[in-house]
Amino acid sequence: MTARETPWQDIAEAKRKAISDSIPKEWRLASVPSIEEQRDVTESSVKTHLSRREIQITETDASGIVQKTTNGEWKVVEVTKAFCHRAALAQQLVNCLHEMFFDAAVSDATRLDEYYASNKKPIGPLHGLPISLKDQFHVKGVETSMAYVGWIGTFEGKKGTGQEKLFESELVKELRALGAVLYCKTSVPQSLMFGETVNNIIGTTTNPKNRELSSGGSSGGEGALMGLYGSPLGFGTDIGGSIRIPASFNGLYGIRPSFGRLPYDGMANSIDGQTSVLSVNGPISHSPVSLKLAFKALLSQQPWLRDPLCLELPWRDEQAAKVSEQFAFGVLKFDGTVTPHPPVRRAIDTVVKALEQQGHQIFEWRPPAHSRGTSLCGKAYVYDGGHDIHKNLRLSGEPALPQIVGSYGKDEPNKQADATAIAANNVAKRSFQKEYLDYWNSTSTQSGTGQPADAFIMPIAPFAAARHGRYRYYGYTTIINTLDYTACAIPVTNIDKNIDRIDENFQPLSDLDKQVHEDYDPEIYDGAHVGVQLVGRRFQEEKVLALTELIGNALKTSEDGEQAKL
Amino acid sequence: MTARETPWQDIAEAKRKAISDSIPKEWRLASVPSIEEQRDVTESSVKTHLSRREIQITETDASGIVQKTTNGEWKVVEVTKAFCHRAALAQQLVNCLHEMFFDAAVSDATRLDEYYASNKKPIGPLHGLPISLKDQFHVKGVETSMAYVGWIGTFEGKKGTGQEKLFESELVKELRALGAVLYCKTSVPQSLMFGETVNNIIGTTTNPKNRELSSGGSSGGEGALMGLYGSPLGFGTDIGGSIRIPASFNGLYGIRPSFGRLPYDGMANSIDGQTSVLSVNGPISHSPVSLKLAFKALLSQQPWLRDPLCLELPWRDEQAAKVSEQFAFGVLKFDGTVTPHPPVRRAIDTVVKALEQQGHQIFEWRPPAHSRGTSLCGKAYVYDGGHDIHKNLRLSGEPALPQIVGSYGKDEPNKQADATAIAANNVAKRSFQKEYLDYWNSTSTQSGTGQPADAFIMPIAPFAAARHGRYRYYGYTTIINTLDYTACAIPVTNIDKNIDRIDENFQPLSDLDKQVHEDYDPEIYDGAHVGVQLVGRRFQEEKVLALTELIGNALKTSEDGEQAKL
Repeated sequence: MTARETPWQDIAEAKRKAISDSIPKEWRLASVPSIEEQRDVTESSVKTHLSRREIQITETDASGIVQKTTNGEWKVVEVTKAFCHRAALAQQLVNCLHEMFFDAAVSDATRLDEYYASNKKPIGPLHGLPISLKDQFHVKGVETSMAYVGWIGTFEGKKGTGQEKLFESELVKELRALGAVLYCKTSVPQSLMFGETVNNIIGTTTNPKNRELSSGGSSGGEGALMGLYGSPLGFGTDIGGSIRIPASFNGLYGIRPSFGRLPYDGMANSIDGQTSVLSVNGPISHSPVSLKLAFKALLSQQPWLRDPLCLELPWRDEQAAKVSEQFAFGVLKFDGTVTPHPPVRRAIDTVVKALEQQGHQIFEWRPPAHSRGTSLCGKAYVYDGGHDIHKNLRLSGEPALPQIVGSYGKDEPNKQADATAIAANNVAKRSFQKEYLDYWNSTSTQSGTGQPADAFIMPIAPFAAARHGRYRYYGYTTIINTLDYTACAIPVTNIDKNIDRIDENFQPLSDLDKQVHEDYDPEIYDGAHVGVQLVGRRFQEEKVLALTELIGNALKTSEDGEQAKL
Repeated sequence: MTARETPWQDIAEAKRKAISDSIPKEWRLASVPSIEEQRDVTESSVKTHLSRREIQITETDASGIVQKTTNGEWKVVEVTKAFCHRAALAQQLVNCLHEMFFDAAVSDATRLDEYYASNKKPIGPLHGLPISLKDQFHVKGVETSMAYVGWIGTFEGKKGTGQEKLFESELVKELRALGAVLYCKTSVPQSLMFGETVNNIIGTTTNPKNRELSSGGSSGGEGALMGLYGSPLGFGTDIGGSIRIPASFNGLYGIRPSFGRLPYDGMANSIDGQTSVLSVNGPISHSPVSLKLAFKALLSQQPWLRDPLCLELPWRDEQAAKVSEQFAFGVLKFDGTVTPHPPVRRAIDTVVKALEQQGHQIFEWRPPAHSRGTSLCGKAYVYDGGHDIHKNLRLSGEPALPQIVGSYGKDEPNKQADATAIAANNVAKRSFQKEYLDYWNSTSTQSGTGQPADAFIMPIAPFAAARHGRYRYYGYTTIINTLDYTACAIPVTNIDKNIDRIDENFQPLSDLDKQVHEDYDPEIYDGAHVGVQLVGRRFQEEKVLALTELIGNALKTSEDGEQAKL
């Protein structure tokens, strides 16, 4: 019986059961509190089930873990098992995983411990670090459904390729060579093309800090898992915000590099071959130093020797900002289209204040209208009118979710763009990029340092996190994909319903602006993480990560930052 | 009366006259020998009209000129006038220019001499170097017809933009900042999309070494001008061989960098916005050190700060090959589709012998079938079916030349590709690039050095130069555009009808193979330049230029090389 003949519901049900069954019996929860009983599951809900030692290990950041696994203080097997356990709990609390392969992980960890015992040195700079991966990465031994029911039991929807459960994406191979331990793949939305994580296989991934809210998307499983400390570091992809959104919604750091900096070869994808705005891989983690650790380690593998679209750009320490310098940051509080909610505005102000306290220059960022840039990106996403997505949906007969129907059609794809229309969009995009670059250069006269801005700060979304089914506006992230800039999500604070009240003086600019405004309810949002993004020029990942660390440190010593509370 | 209302023939005629009129009276030739009277016009035909001093200046290579203009030994005005004179002669002999702006050049040269006199130093690393530009570069004061009759008197076909004769391409601005003197723009074929230089404005540009042959294209005016030493260095563009072809056909060096290494912003183009295979800028000159001079100078301007698609990759001396090393070169003599003519095979053998004499390793390059790669490139060129080209032809009503009718349609464009077809081609291209990269890595087992090939050598075309109207096959150049590799044309030898005889044992593989074979006639080809190309990995311009210099030197000391004769 082929997939086409089996009702899609049955295939999805079987997959859900397989996911549940892959949780070891001893780690299964007798019951999970309802959202009403416990909105925030990041504390007792998870910690009750962990040993003190497991909590110590899993709440150490990635760079701290690697320090201990590479000096032999911690055994890789113990570290791995602790994360497997916490990930299994996270799965039961927020539904964030598509694949768990804990036995393979423990077996890899054992080999790493043996290597260390024999050689008295780590196998690589990520020796023994458990790393979670969005379900777009191919990993041997498990499948990549990427949320398509029709991909279950296939290789990217195709049967009998011989690659199923064998092929590995380039970045996966490199992580293994660096000594990382892979143990789970995280949930994604149907098609990858929206900012929540909902699909017809597993349903909805919720935000562990506040399950009334979305964990974000499309790397939403990563965000939710890491928000619960079920992973010290993970990789997501970003074609419109899909790394920065879940990072921000879950109180994490996550960098979207420029295309070509990290390898993308061998990834599963939707709408593959659309090259106007390209998806990129990037790490998400609890600290900027952990992002740097992963980034630098990957570049040490010279991925450009194996990924034909990867650039020969080794890690450049000299490009990183010097911490002693005075920097100039542009600040964009509002993009002219959708007004950020009060807590997002407060987060921006908090960062500005922290940087000013440290003596850095801050000035208003007044670039070419973002609406023009984001519409170019929006066109690129729908060049094929949903042809590829519907092809994948038809494999099983599963329906398109409401979140993608507008862009891609309900039962049939929309009309395709032709070569002339695509070329015109590419020319308009290049022209917008040029205009933005000229603006950036012009900021030397306003920056206060005599140099153009080192980077700029802006919201990631108009909301701290989307409410389920209400991700109405992507312009704050997609503008960066249009520009191909380097951008890093930075956690800043948490919503306090007593501080972050509804703006009673709000005057909507449009229906959309009004709808987004009305989505804000301090009671519902109370406690949610709030982040911002730091944006640097193309390929300035070293500088952006250094400035992210600088901001993280500034927030720690500032009164208002979330970091101060940790 | 608008351009549409004036017959295109009249507009073209007026432009031809304007070109002729821009030659100073004292430099006009009373008569030009016919092709039958004098096929090769590189010697007495041109030198008779030049002073010994003018010959000395114009036959000094670009790096030699800059040495003398930057130490004050030569005045920029004198150097500029010498090249203007020789370019004017070249124009009369081989019809290679669209624009001459000698007065502006002398005025710029005067300012440079004044700067030097006041400051006792050059204004930049290209101080006083005359540089010719393909008529795709916008230069203030002159128009860019780019061979479209309908673009005459407009800015890229549009009237009243305010940019006409004012706007300059990014690379042009940088050349000025570096101290270069601009003085002429060179001819291109209609649409830029074939390898000869013929258009409805100026007719045909011929090959100065052998006017029975084409100067190549699409930077064919550059090739012809430099073949006559009417320019020490020029810039062309390459989307399918358009730098390497005219370089090779005219006994020159010319590098096609990977896309993003040199700025392309603000260039005029055909089919702009097709981004699967991108056109790149690159220098053409008489010596590898001159190419390096220009390349390094441009990168010193940090073009990535002004061109949004340019990469932050400064010149990397450490990436250049060390001359003392032993290198491994793959050699591809035949691409499996069209057999190179006997002199092209001899040129490859000459290079191999010269390298072996120097102790380098040579091995057979057996990559994935080039035919697969070139067909991907071919599809990209015709995504829009000729829509853009016909739009430009319709501006004046000029007819499509026979050379483009096959790909783009005679009176109407062919059918366009849709987004799905374009995406599929992009995916296939990436997959081919990956396969090729894997092959390259695998050569460590055959190279003789234990490392993968440093570079490989292959023909640029199956012929030394195309006969007029007979450019039948582009696979030897387009494969490199598909792969986005760095490739440099290297002049090797000249055809000797007594050595390079017809291969009597030739067995054609196809009709095309047979036709190309039959195009070879030793009597017609006698004397023509023959080149090869050296191909390096993506973005390895430093290494490719260093190895090009190494090969140039090896040929000089070898018995068979053209260089030995100079």
